[in-house]
Amino acid sequence: MAPGTLHMNKPVIDMEGSVRALYWSDDRLSVLDQRVLPDQICYEVFDTVEGVAEAIRSMRVRGAPAIGIAAAFGVVLAARQRYRENPQEWRLAIMDDIRCLAESRPTAVNLFWALGEMQGCFDGITGDPEPALLKHATAIHEQDVQANLRMGELGSAVLSDASGVLTHCNAGALATGGYGTALGVIRSGYRKGIEHVFATETRPWNQGARLTVWEFHQDRIPVTMVADSAAASLMATGQVQWVVVGADRITANGDVANKIGTYSLAVLARHHGVRFMVVAPTSTIDRELESGRDIVIEEREQSELLPQYYLDNDSCVEAWNPVFDTTPANLIDAIVTEKGVVHDPDQEGMQRLFDA
Amino acid sequence: MAPGTLHMNKPVIDMEGSVRALYWSDDRLSVLDQRVLPDQICYEVFDTVEGVAEAIRSMRVRGAPAIGIAAAFGVVLAARQRYRENPQEWRLAIMDDIRCLAESRPTAVNLFWALGEMQGCFDGITGDPEPALLKHATAIHEQDVQANLRMGELGSAVLSDASGVLTHCNAGALATGGYGTALGVIRSGYRKGIEHVFATETRPWNQGARLTVWEFHQDRIPVTMVADSAAASLMATGQVQWVVVGADRITANGDVANKIGTYSLAVLARHHGVRFMVVAPTSTIDRELESGRDIVIEEREQSELLPQYYLDNDSCVEAWNPVFDTTPANLIDAIVTEKGVVHDPDQEGMQRLFDA
Repeated sequence: MAPGTLHMNKPVIDMEGSVRALYWSDDRLSVLDQRVLPDQICYEVFDTVEGVAEAIRSMRVRGAPAIGIAAAFGVVLAARQRYRENPQEWRLAIMDDIRCLAESRPTAVNLFWALGEMQGCFDGITGDPEPALLKHATAIHEQDVQANLRMGELGSAVLSDASGVLTHCNAGALATGGYGTALGVIRSGYRKGIEHVFATETRPWNQGARLTVWEFHQDRIPVTMVADSAAASLMATGQVQWVVVGADRITANGDVANKIGTYSLAVLARHHGVRFMVVAPTSTIDRELESGRDIVIEEREQSELLPQYYLDNDSCVEAWNPVFDTTPANLIDAIVTEKGVVHDPDQEGMQRLFDA
Repeated sequence: MAPGTLHMNKPVIDMEGSVRALYWSDDRLSVLDQRVLPDQICYEVFDTVEGVAEAIRSMRVRGAPAIGIAAAFGVVLAARQRYRENPQEWRLAIMDDIRCLAESRPTAVNLFWALGEMQGCFDGITGDPEPALLKHATAIHEQDVQANLRMGELGSAVLSDASGVLTHCNAGALATGGYGTALGVIRSGYRKGIEHVFATETRPWNQGARLTVWEFHQDRIPVTMVADSAAASLMATGQVQWVVVGADRITANGDVANKIGTYSLAVLARHHGVRFMVVAPTSTIDRELESGRDIVIEEREQSELLPQYYLDNDSCVEAWNPVFDTTPANLIDAIVTEKGVVHDPDQEGMQRLFDA
């Protein structure tokens, strides 16, 4: 699917100094293959919408905001192809491509938000749709970086009294257009005096071990990794005052779907008097869902967890592999967005973000 | 160190139908190499105390009761060698071997208990110490199996209203002389109507993924594995009524040191109204320690957690790898021993086990 692959010694760095998970260049979308990090730095180049959908499905690109941005560029590639095939009917034909992108991952709402944003441009376009759609996809990407920088400022101000923070999964530059959501807050916080950053391994896909600590290593920010199951012991030592995570979907009442284990950390944090922060752009908020009970949680293959030995027909062993969980708003102390911070989130607090 | 290795298609099964992690045969100790399960079934044969100490240190044999039994047979091998070297002075010379065994793993108190038991025989011995010591080590092994069968009965009676249970790490036949502690209770409970058994993966050493589900697979008991971080979501579904785990050390007040993640599960269980059971023979109780604060927690190499990429000198990444944690007695609903069940454990309840 990928017409080209670029192997590099160092990742592409953006103006803010953080790693680029994806960029548009030479009329094509380049995507850092996150499956092979940290051992290989390898950008794959896509010039078809099918390729972009497969890159999302296969988790070459992952992280809610980055998935949204990739999908936006996927729409650009789809429009190019459909317009070439039939300049009159591209708006109709592209609906298949949008469906294909929408089905690539089920939980991250930013994917559907970005597809909606791109479709919102269709009506105003005359002639070749590519220039207008590319402009819009680029704006989505740039706005995401700006939102992350803003959240970094807002969130790090909330952390002002913390010396140690713990993060889960990867809500960093690799998961976004750049700088990161949770890791953006930690980056900004580190400059302001956070002394100790901890990251979980994040099974089964090891986003912590492979991606988060790699990002900090690139930035020369010291980080200590722990097994997911050691987070409770870490909290008991008193070294961590805040847990800081991203989100894949936030419902109207402030419930949060995020990487499996987030809910676990929220319960443990409450038990230990550690505070809990979620950092996500408002594009992650799904106002159509009343609460976390309405969120569909993606379950992935049991082979992500089980050794090959157990995967034959005779096996008494199976695995349950939900890759997200839902944290109720009452376990969250702050939701940080580019439009402001919601403390002790509930339906009213979340609504105020959109009233302003 | 191992003079022989036996590769097998099936493990050695004992009279109770469970896997043998270790057995004495042909004047030597055979140890199932748990590092290569489930892919290979490989018993290594040891005829020196240094070999047995290394088998414990390297986690070929692991699990508190099994470590104790292996150490007891290690004393037999040490006595043989020391008596051959100097029949008059073996009692003095063997102290180096006992120290070597004692230093092989720091947390499992059964190790020190078994060494004490073996030393307690020394005074009554005249002539070649091997027959008397072998008899005592064999008795320690057999008593452990009997204790496990008894705990299976007692513990499964406590679980009588449960349909689903979750276990962590491996406290099974592989961790004991046979049948298992926590897994013994689950084996007995399965015969009495437990419908669904869940096991955590248990990072970083994957005792759940490699050992616990393998044991259940051998017994044809269906089991569902989850990532450690998915346990909270599993509890939230209501499918689990009890968490059942083993112990490496229990202090006089009922605090429990066990595999990293046990404390996490205890906090999560309390939050979800799930009950929490610890199953261990009284040899696991360290009455000299007042509470869990006094337990030394083993920390292992960061390479067990970190990809090789981060292990060079230039790395900003380190790992904190405590392999046990301490669960306070107030998060435990029942401690099951071969001498009886302590509900809502505290110093008095634990003391009653020894008064009876």
